[in-house]
Amino acid sequence: MEKFEVHILGCGSALPTTRHFPTSQVVNIREKLFMIDCGEGAQMQLRRSRLKFSRLNHIFISHLHGDHCFGLIGLISTFSLLGRTSTLHIHAHKELETLMRPWLDFFCRGINFQVEFHCFSEKTPETIYDDRSVAVTTIPLNHRVPCVGFLFKEKPTPDHIIREMIDFYQIPTYELLRIKNGGDYVTPDGKVIPHGRLTTPSSEPRSYAYCSDTTCLMSNIRQLEGVDLLFHEATFASDNEARAQETFHSTARQAALLAQDAKVGQLIIGHFSARYENENLLLKEAQSIFPNTILAKENLKLSIKNKPH
Amino acid sequence: MEKFEVHILGCGSALPTTRHFPTSQVVNIREKLFMIDCGEGAQMQLRRSRLKFSRLNHIFISHLHGDHCFGLIGLISTFSLLGRTSTLHIHAHKELETLMRPWLDFFCRGINFQVEFHCFSEKTPETIYDDRSVAVTTIPLNHRVPCVGFLFKEKPTPDHIIREMIDFYQIPTYELLRIKNGGDYVTPDGKVIPHGRLTTPSSEPRSYAYCSDTTCLMSNIRQLEGVDLLFHEATFASDNEARAQETFHSTARQAALLAQDAKVGQLIIGHFSARYENENLLLKEAQSIFPNTILAKENLKLSIKNKPH
Repeated sequence: MEKFEVHILGCGSALPTTRHFPTSQVVNIREKLFMIDCGEGAQMQLRRSRLKFSRLNHIFISHLHGDHCFGLIGLISTFSLLGRTSTLHIHAHKELETLMRPWLDFFCRGINFQVEFHCFSEKTPETIYDDRSVAVTTIPLNHRVPCVGFLFKEKPTPDHIIREMIDFYQIPTYELLRIKNGGDYVTPDGKVIPHGRLTTPSSEPRSYAYCSDTTCLMSNIRQLEGVDLLFHEATFASDNEARAQETFHSTARQAALLAQDAKVGQLIIGHFSARYENENLLLKEAQSIFPNTILAKENLKLSIKNKPH
Repeated sequence: MEKFEVHILGCGSALPTTRHFPTSQVVNIREKLFMIDCGEGAQMQLRRSRLKFSRLNHIFISHLHGDHCFGLIGLISTFSLLGRTSTLHIHAHKELETLMRPWLDFFCRGINFQVEFHCFSEKTPETIYDDRSVAVTTIPLNHRVPCVGFLFKEKPTPDHIIREMIDFYQIPTYELLRIKNGGDYVTPDGKVIPHGRLTTPSSEPRSYAYCSDTTCLMSNIRQLEGVDLLFHEATFASDNEARAQETFHSTARQAALLAQDAKVGQLIIGHFSARYENENLLLKEAQSIFPNTILAKENLKLSIKNKPH
């Protein structure tokens, strides 16, 4: 099975605690690493995860609050010390480049790689990364400052050829790619062998959505519909619903309702307020609505499994 | 005994490891906290130390390499979230203010306290902090960029009055302060009672010196002479002496020779290169020259004890 893993590096919120690092995650899709947010200490946590620094080429920053980006400068310095040469791409709101450039010029003089900033709008979903195997699309969110989530979606893979049928119909090799990708086969005497007889379906493309920081936006349901794994912030429990509203955050209950309505496979909640010594309160609140919920925690690795069509 | 403690928050060097945070320390003198350097993660470590954030008003930055200052912005943000109102003083080379201001303006909008930067020259020792109980003086160091160490020196405290002698000579109260501070007493009939008969000596002022990052500077011996505790960087062991020289760092052996020549009370070494999995190598090398050496480690607290004159 091709890898599709989510590594939680930090899942606390703005105030540091002895239990949590601020927000950062790494998505590992077929050994390409994508970082989402980069709170202070992300590089130490990345080191702890034993993921390869050199496989990380794209960093996505949801919004410009310190607990989501203060770890960037240290991470980039370390990349430089490790002798990196390949370009690092940072996808973020446009002010980040203005803020980072003077620091990069001063603290990372003479680095041997480019740091390229790519900005996006927070208004409408936008595909900001796209390769053979995965596309990353922004999810408009609702926070005190411009903020987006990120949807990682695998590309469909070709169907699997049934070797015996290929032999049986003596299909030439140059036809195989077309058949894998959905084509039928027409024999020399004009008979059509339908695609479905020649192949078994590939696994369904997997998906991961990250939504933090934000109020709970039911308007996003269509975009989140059926994702295999949804990370949604649950800064507060329902006892602090007013506070959540006021600070543009969500409660565990709200995150669970969204997961339920969007029919996601699994919900993982995080970005916990420092006030909750025991986050099981948040877990229980979410599970009472959406049972397949888990709590984020530092150094947790989640694999998204393949499922047949 | 009045408190004089050193808390090690981080003692690694530039490359992060799973064992060390980058450099940061807190000196606690009579419940006033002074931070020395502020590497990434310093605020998490400060939280772990259980020291009171509100008692920290002065931060001293030795030099502008990331592993000594990337934690500042997160620490200041947290101060703001915690509702701080009192001025925070940052003592550093002058470029730091230029770098920090745009970040403070963007990430810490609306904070309710002043952040005041105070700059110093790295050329000659300069007293950069001074109150009733302690003075902080810079120590010129030799690194790739301008760099200073810091010498914390307690002020002498008055001698202790011997109550019985005061009663015996019926000395009036208004004379006591003068006697505590070294004066003799002259009786109404002109007899001189020497200071030493009326008092017991106070403890000797204690001192702590911090030297990192630097080559080993024997020219600093006079300034370090007799300090109770010396923190000196020992990035490398002697097997990497050439590398130490090249990168303007010290070996454990060099730090120990300096401690020996300056006749310090105790040596603590830190700023360990990530290459040393087991720092006992560094410890043994230093102890073979200066036996009263210890290794810095995260969350270590050292008390500097009073000693009589």
